Amino acid sequence: MKIGAIVLAAGEGRRFGGNKLLAKVGDEPVILRVLKALSGFDRVVIVGGAYVNELMPYLSNEVIIYNPYYRDGMSTSIRLGLRFFQDYDAVLIVLTDMPLITNEVVSRIVSAYHDGCSAVVPTHNGITGGNPVLIHRVLFPELTRLSGDVGAREILRGGRVDVCTVECGPEVLIDIDTVNDLTKVLNIVNTNRQ
Amino acid sequence: MKIGAIVLAAGEGRRFGGNKLLAKVGDEPVILRVLKALSGFDRVVIVGGAYVNELMPYLSNEVIIYNPYYRDGMSTSIRLGLRFFQDYDAVLIVLTDMPLITNEVVSRIVSAYHDGCSAVVPTHNGITGGNPVLIHRVLFPELTRLSGDVGAREILRGGRVDVCTVECGPEVLIDIDTVNDLTKVLNIVNTNRQ
Repeated sequence: MKIGAIVLAAGEGRRFGGNKLLAKVGDEPVILRVLKALSGFDRVVIVGGAYVNELMPYLSNEVIIYNPYYRDGMSTSIRLGLRFFQDYDAVLIVLTDMPLITNEVVSRIVSAYHDGCSAVVPTHNGITGGNPVLIHRVLFPELTRLSGDVGAREILRGGRVDVCTVECGPEVLIDIDTVNDLTKVLNIVNTNRQ
Repeated sequence: MKIGAIVLAAGEGRRFGGNKLLAKVGDEPVILRVLKALSGFDRVVIVGGAYVNELMPYLSNEVIIYNPYYRDGMSTSIRLGLRFFQDYDAVLIVLTDMPLITNEVVSRIVSAYHDGCSAVVPTHNGITGGNPVLIHRVLFPELTRLSGDVGAREILRGGRVDVCTVECGPEVLIDIDTVNDLTKVLNIVNTNRQ
């Protein structure tokens, strides 16, 4: 199965009040931790917004797509990434503000795909809504038609779609929206180190 | 017919000794003249190399793909652009160092396409080798397989491919490789203005 990761890094991070993707977690910028978790996967990084110039030097080994429509929300970034992977079997929609995601978790989500799944969503203790999600190509047309600041989850609601779930650790639910979120993440990382 | 333009701006311009794409011709940076000639066409601009940071601010309304493989030559940029347009009927391969190309010339090349053409190449006074070239999707697999610092012309040689030609002005043969070339272009523009 050919899988391409659409790595979403075009957010403005307004609630954080700065470039959260370059904040350090475990001595490494958040975005590089996420890219390490995608080691071995085909991917494109979608950028746009205030922090493009800051981010680019960190991404010199990546295929990057600059999204001139970033102000129109996440759906525009997904659409550009999807153009790149339109001949693939599935895409992973990856949020770059989830620094605790690991390569093992990504592999676990991908491995959970089986015939009949239109998407795979990670859960933790049964709580749905985790990321990254895997979207099978049967849903590419719907994904392309999304508009505004919504993500893949939008098309998975309402029970119309065959969503498979896979139980993972808490990392699939932990993202950084605020400085307070970053503090929590740093506490988790420090506790795990001890 | 759906046509996408792959705009090649990842060259290092070594013979020019600087960023030729921001040199001004008729009061406008070379690359913006070329983009104006593509007005109305779907396009992606492929960047890479020494001048990315300088170019980006001029391209804030464009879909841009950063090519991390730019050192491996033009074929790698074409391949990335092609991934974006794989569902299109044809692509235009556009060199950004040809500032005399106009929207009329591009339309003329596109209009010259007819059934049986695998590619359309502009000529001037019968001299072939002009640009931009239009490549029909029948040649996308071959275009994807190119490697090294070669362009679309590589697959049009040897009479294997149904190449249609269209007679255009001298602008389809005029590119800027050196500072001397730029001087010649400026002379042409100044003469035409008088």
